[in-house]
Amino acid sequence: MKKILIMAGDGIGPEIVAEAVKVLDVAKARFGLEIETDDALVGGAAYDVHGDPLPEVSLEKARAADAILFGSIGGPKWDQIERDKRPERGLLRLRSSLGLFANLRPAILFPQLADASSLKPEVVSGLDILIVRELTGGIYFGQPRGIREENGERVGFNTDVYSESEIRRIGKVAFELAMARGKRLCSVDKANVLEVTELWKEVITEMAKDYPEVDVSHLYVDNAAMQLVRTPKQFDVLVTGNLFGDILSDQAAMLTGSIGMLPSASLDVNRKGMYEPCHGSAPDIAGQGIANPLATILSLAMLLRYSLDRGDVADAIEKAVEQVLEDGLRTADIYTDGCRKVGTTEMGDAVAAAL
Amino acid sequence: MKKILIMAGDGIGPEIVAEAVKVLDVAKARFGLEIETDDALVGGAAYDVHGDPLPEVSLEKARAADAILFGSIGGPKWDQIERDKRPERGLLRLRSSLGLFANLRPAILFPQLADASSLKPEVVSGLDILIVRELTGGIYFGQPRGIREENGERVGFNTDVYSESEIRRIGKVAFELAMARGKRLCSVDKANVLEVTELWKEVITEMAKDYPEVDVSHLYVDNAAMQLVRTPKQFDVLVTGNLFGDILSDQAAMLTGSIGMLPSASLDVNRKGMYEPCHGSAPDIAGQGIANPLATILSLAMLLRYSLDRGDVADAIEKAVEQVLEDGLRTADIYTDGCRKVGTTEMGDAVAAAL
Ligand SMILES: CC(C)[C@H](C(=O)O)[C@@H](O)C(=O)O
Ligand SMILES: CC(C)[C@H](C(=O)O)[C@@H](O)C(=O)O
Repeated sequence: MKKILIMAGDGIGPEIVAEAVKVLDVAKARFGLEIETDDALVGGAAYDVHGDPLPEVSLEKARAADAILFGSIGGPKWDQIERDKRPERGLLRLRSSLGLFANLRPAILFPQLADASSLKPEVVSGLDILIVRELTGGIYFGQPRGIREENGERVGFNTDVYSESEIRRIGKVAFELAMARGKRLCSVDKANVLEVTELWKEVITEMAKDYPEVDVSHLYVDNAAMQLVRTPKQFDVLVTGNLFGDILSDQAAMLTGSIGMLPSASLDVNRKGMYEPCHGSAPDIAGQGIANPLATILSLAMLLRYSLDRGDVADAIEKAVEQVLEDGLRTADIYTDGCRKVGTTEMGDAVAAAL
Repeated sequence: MKKILIMAGDGIGPEIVAEAVKVLDVAKARFGLEIETDDALVGGAAYDVHGDPLPEVSLEKARAADAILFGSIGGPKWDQIERDKRPERGLLRLRSSLGLFANLRPAILFPQLADASSLKPEVVSGLDILIVRELTGGIYFGQPRGIREENGERVGFNTDVYSESEIRRIGKVAFELAMARGKRLCSVDKANVLEVTELWKEVITEMAKDYPEVDVSHLYVDNAAMQLVRTPKQFDVLVTGNLFGDILSDQAAMLTGSIGMLPSASLDVNRKGMYEPCHGSAPDIAGQGIANPLATILSLAMLLRYSLDRGDVADAIEKAVEQVLEDGLRTADIYTDGCRKVGTTEMGDAVAAAL
């Protein structure tokens, strides 16, 4: 019996997660999966009840689970509360407490949605990039940090920091994923300016010797942001630190024009993981029943593949999603003329039915 | 008599700067400008002679000049030398020593080059964004920094730091530029994670009260990177810190597809400035006579406008560049079928003639 913890969170989180749970139920029946689910509060929803965006009870459940399906967190409602209680901090603490250091963010263009991209079709058709982002280190967690008084004015400061072993740990994940894919790995740094990324580049360069089959390159982050716009298909796997990964993975996701489609995984050393859509909590459309649940459903597929070793079930779910796209069903975010516009529930129902 | 210092630098620097000097000579004659020029070594070229990428003699000349025309620096030849001697460090010290805190990077799509973009024409036609990047603070210059031994392994670290006054200083430039343009300003931060940018956001928010006519918005950097891909024309002026500015300005430049066309200015509090093309030293094509000199020629125009108060001459140079594009002349980087492919010198000659 495997345990999946459902953390729906804020904004559109509950709506989209509900559709993924629907698909999971069908998958359980069809494949006879031994899975039990539980729920836990996180983000603003948890703050509202417990005064804490990651209450101990939620963290305990997260520790006990084999995998977590996460919706999204945050919204204007909680923007003014004290820094440590904001929804985002709950997510960051969850990543850190569970040691989810490896964030896998695919940027894939679904052929059925080629038109949705703001880039020319020939530039993005067939796009299939995997961004491997370090998720529990770097400037997100570095100490010291804060805002202090100095010479009569406020000064804000943060520390970007990576140790050799942290870089090696994420490097290994990236090299292994590159081996399993197109055998090309691009490491992104700003080694010409920042010592922390100079070390990053050195360690990745050393590691490259152990993976002679992988074609390794290094780009400065400014150049990487340019190359992602110019010729994104030159990339296979990209590996980088927490902050650059945040920026580049969102940029890469948006190249596809359909961020509502993109799942992500955050894994620990034992491949226990948290799975969530790449998009945010979209408070502007929350509660309207129009959000796209497909990124969350595809996150469930990733969960089954990586944390529960059920690639077969993952394949079936991904096929069902493709089928529904083939059938012309589209939520508002990916709608184009000639397709059928559906809401969140209808989309979830369609995937469940296709499965 | 005004003094312009020419710092050609490395790679294609000398070739492209030569064409801008050619144009300057014509402008001097046509407009009776009282300008004298001098040269100084910088980057790898300076390291090769003086063992220092910014020798004292060059810095002294830079201090004495009214404005600096800069080519580009860096190349594989100097990649392995000790950190503090690398070409980039010369550029960073120059920015810092001269107090060039305001980096203006326009991303403009030239109608004649609309095809060059990897984005769909309707997404980028008429694009005209100005990125205002803080250039002498943030993680580029923050202390402490370095690589140390800790628990038997190397640890790299850098400090991101901004004071209220630094933020105010660059904010003022950005608000004033927004007032002179489309009256829209977007400030980019990662205030949900980094305290240093939380302060940034607070200060910009406070300042907004003094510019009631400016429509101010705030975006997290990951979202900004997405929006630049999705609907870049939503932006007028963007203001951000040193590192985010480095990444986003290059991303924005590449949206136009013709980074070989984009100039930049780095100004101090008195509008004394350094002007350089947005592109780098392109060592792969250096010495072949095929580099595009237009970004450098347009940097000269910016120099005349901002530091020498000769907007009329700047206009004339920009018109000459447009004329040459209208005539169908293209260097290799912006070449498309049906145009005439020319080299660096021929392009410079054509602009000089048009002027
Ligand atoms: C919500 C925020 C803290 C988070 C991050 O910056 O990591 C988000 O942008 C993401 O990428 O998952
Ligand atoms: C060469 C490098 C130090 C520089 C920077 O990062 O500022 C360059 O990328 C730029 O943007 O001018």
